[in-house]
Amino acid sequence: MVVKIYKFKGFLEGMKGILVILDGLGDLPCKQLKGKTPLEAAKTSTMDKLAQMGITGQQHTIGRGITPGSDTAHLALFGYNPYEVYTGRGPYEASGTDLPVKPGDIAFRTNMATIKDGIIVDRRAGRISKGTEEIEKALQNITIEDVETIFKVGIDHRAALVLRGPGLASEVTGNDPKVEGKRPKSIISTSPEAEKTARILKQYIRQASEIMETLKINEKRISEDKLPANYLLVRGAGKAPHVESFQSKYGLTAECVAGGGLYKGVASICGMKINNDHQGTGGIPTDLPSKVRAAIKSLERSQFVFLHVKGTDNLGHDNKPIQKMEFIDEIDIAIEPFLDLIPETLICITGDHSTPCMMRDHSSDPLPILMTGEGVRPDQVTEFGERPTMRGGLGHIDGQQVIPIMLGLIGRVHKFGA
Amino acid sequence: MVVKIYKFKGFLEGMKGILVILDGLGDLPCKQLKGKTPLEAAKTSTMDKLAQMGITGQQHTIGRGITPGSDTAHLALFGYNPYEVYTGRGPYEASGTDLPVKPGDIAFRTNMATIKDGIIVDRRAGRISKGTEEIEKALQNITIEDVETIFKVGIDHRAALVLRGPGLASEVTGNDPKVEGKRPKSIISTSPEAEKTARILKQYIRQASEIMETLKINEKRISEDKLPANYLLVRGAGKAPHVESFQSKYGLTAECVAGGGLYKGVASICGMKINNDHQGTGGIPTDLPSKVRAAIKSLERSQFVFLHVKGTDNLGHDNKPIQKMEFIDEIDIAIEPFLDLIPETLICITGDHSTPCMMRDHSSDPLPILMTGEGVRPDQVTEFGERPTMRGGLGHIDGQQVIPIMLGLIGRVHKFGA
Repeated sequence: MVVKIYKFKGFLEGMKGILVILDGLGDLPCKQLKGKTPLEAAKTSTMDKLAQMGITGQQHTIGRGITPGSDTAHLALFGYNPYEVYTGRGPYEASGTDLPVKPGDIAFRTNMATIKDGIIVDRRAGRISKGTEEIEKALQNITIEDVETIFKVGIDHRAALVLRGPGLASEVTGNDPKVEGKRPKSIISTSPEAEKTARILKQYIRQASEIMETLKINEKRISEDKLPANYLLVRGAGKAPHVESFQSKYGLTAECVAGGGLYKGVASICGMKINNDHQGTGGIPTDLPSKVRAAIKSLERSQFVFLHVKGTDNLGHDNKPIQKMEFIDEIDIAIEPFLDLIPETLICITGDHSTPCMMRDHSSDPLPILMTGEGVRPDQVTEFGERPTMRGGLGHIDGQQVIPIMLGLIGRVHKFGA
Repeated sequence: MVVKIYKFKGFLEGMKGILVILDGLGDLPCKQLKGKTPLEAAKTSTMDKLAQMGITGQQHTIGRGITPGSDTAHLALFGYNPYEVYTGRGPYEASGTDLPVKPGDIAFRTNMATIKDGIIVDRRAGRISKGTEEIEKALQNITIEDVETIFKVGIDHRAALVLRGPGLASEVTGNDPKVEGKRPKSIISTSPEAEKTARILKQYIRQASEIMETLKINEKRISEDKLPANYLLVRGAGKAPHVESFQSKYGLTAECVAGGGLYKGVASICGMKINNDHQGTGGIPTDLPSKVRAAIKSLERSQFVFLHVKGTDNLGHDNKPIQKMEFIDEIDIAIEPFLDLIPETLICITGDHSTPCMMRDHSSDPLPILMTGEGVRPDQVTEFGERPTMRGGLGHIDGQQVIPIMLGLIGRVHKFGA
């Protein structure tokens, strides 16, 4: 069934959309906040204004009772079915390091680590941060059997590895023991189709380690009493999917403003342009105002902007409700300029999943969501929070419905029938 | 999956249902109405009483973020999956002109038009309104290859064309240039399966035009300085689907009271009986009280009645919020007799899609819906409108759920399991 997307003439003409994802935003009532959630306790005059002018609700990113990962959550929020396009985190991380991943590639998240006498003594090679380009260079042009390998370093000890060639599959376990003082885990194929992949991966890691041992950077690190980066720990194997581009799917040019590699990676695989012209870190501390300025700049050039803020999630994982509240205070101040974009721009704010402080991890609790702009029927909710939005006019929606609803509200219509 | 339909003994025994569809009912806040929607601003004491006694909610006809056409919307509201039974508008329009469409037929919406020197000078043949029976008669019994053609005139310049035979498909473009002063468009098959259909359609149009040129009605029109009806413009090709009848699907005899051909057509293809014993026009002005009387009459004979009112949609397309509000005032007065049917009859009022005045077209915004009758749990909503029903007890439902919910509320139960 082909649905025609067209734009209204006149009303809503030229409207654009911005989707703000506050990572791990959702939370549970916290004792330290007198029974409020960090979002409910935070000073959120901007978000409350947007809620008051807009329509709100509860957003279940992947579905009711499902706890999303950050990667699958963002795929769903961009309108893709994560059960179809996701096999592992590798391709999204790799894509976020600017490694040009192609459909069919098997990609891995990789750590540069320190191994001694067969034992991993540091999973992050002493948090190596400089000179890793030498490693990247030394590991180029390694071909094993008929499989090409591509290795790209990211920030600090992080890197991405891609295997490209015929007969590969993603059903292989990684070698990361997750704790120090242990041997690397054996790489095992969990399906017969992945046997070749496991064999090549093992040989690659052996070969890479031999090369890394000989590098000048490690000679220098050892002389400075630092741990050498002489081993690769891989995990998160995934096959890069065929993904219809955001522009082709929705007819909108799109840009991404994010700090974290994973988010840039997902956006990039979905065909969004990455705007790196800001000082956001993908962590805390970060420069929120510079990200908001970048998002506004992106919005001048493109029709759709995805703005990602990571810190809320980190503070949930660390069980720091007061700091999470204070970080939301900061976000609220930083996004105040968005009020000037109303009503010509549809602003949507939500999260990718809840990360309740008490849980120190993701949960399946839904996220509050708001949409504000010209074409919206405002509801009676006047405060942005987990509980106030339970009475919102959007009701309960799935993550994959967010973009279609936004499209309708900016007058870019999927009309089915006549 | 077989579900058994049975009736309760006693409570709800013999309850009937009426589904009132106000076309294009949903709207957005309008400046001319001080930020209210036409429905919210209208004087709706009947609908408000029904809302107060009943249960309300938000209805997404085809799904979240999807903008329905009128044809697909009504299929969904009758409980059919439009993605399965809809290939184009033709069969529904044809069926609405009393042309007995059979599954597999390829049907087209057709205009009688005026062509001169290969140019369409009037798409409606001077809005021809009389004497078209001669054209209908002259175009009978045309067989091309092994394909039978059936041509039936409707109101004014409107007609329907059906091709019936082996090897036909609906993937053909129409020849309507949509504007005057241009040549008819070429008829093209957009799939290999439809090549035969395109070939036959082209030949039919040529042959029909030659016949039409010779008719007395056109001789007369020319002598009166009127434009002759000497050409057929076809569009909306669709293959008539196999549709399980409403009665077989739900175990209820059903009647339709509507003015517009399309709505009668959809109802007819779904096996409803058409009650034409009223003065409704399918437009404005119309005779609403006569339609309401007809619906009450239908309800005496049948267990389920579908009442359609079109004008709300027209006024949305024309961006006339005040007139839309006033027309809703009129509807509210006209349906007052329905209050006497409570509680023995379940009354459901909703729309097929929103047609916000500001948009002058359909949108994906949900519709308010109410259901009132004996077996209902009333919620706290006391006013029928886009925003009051956001807090309704039905929550957010899909169009395809409307009839199943109504069936449950009149005690005709789809029991699954034992």
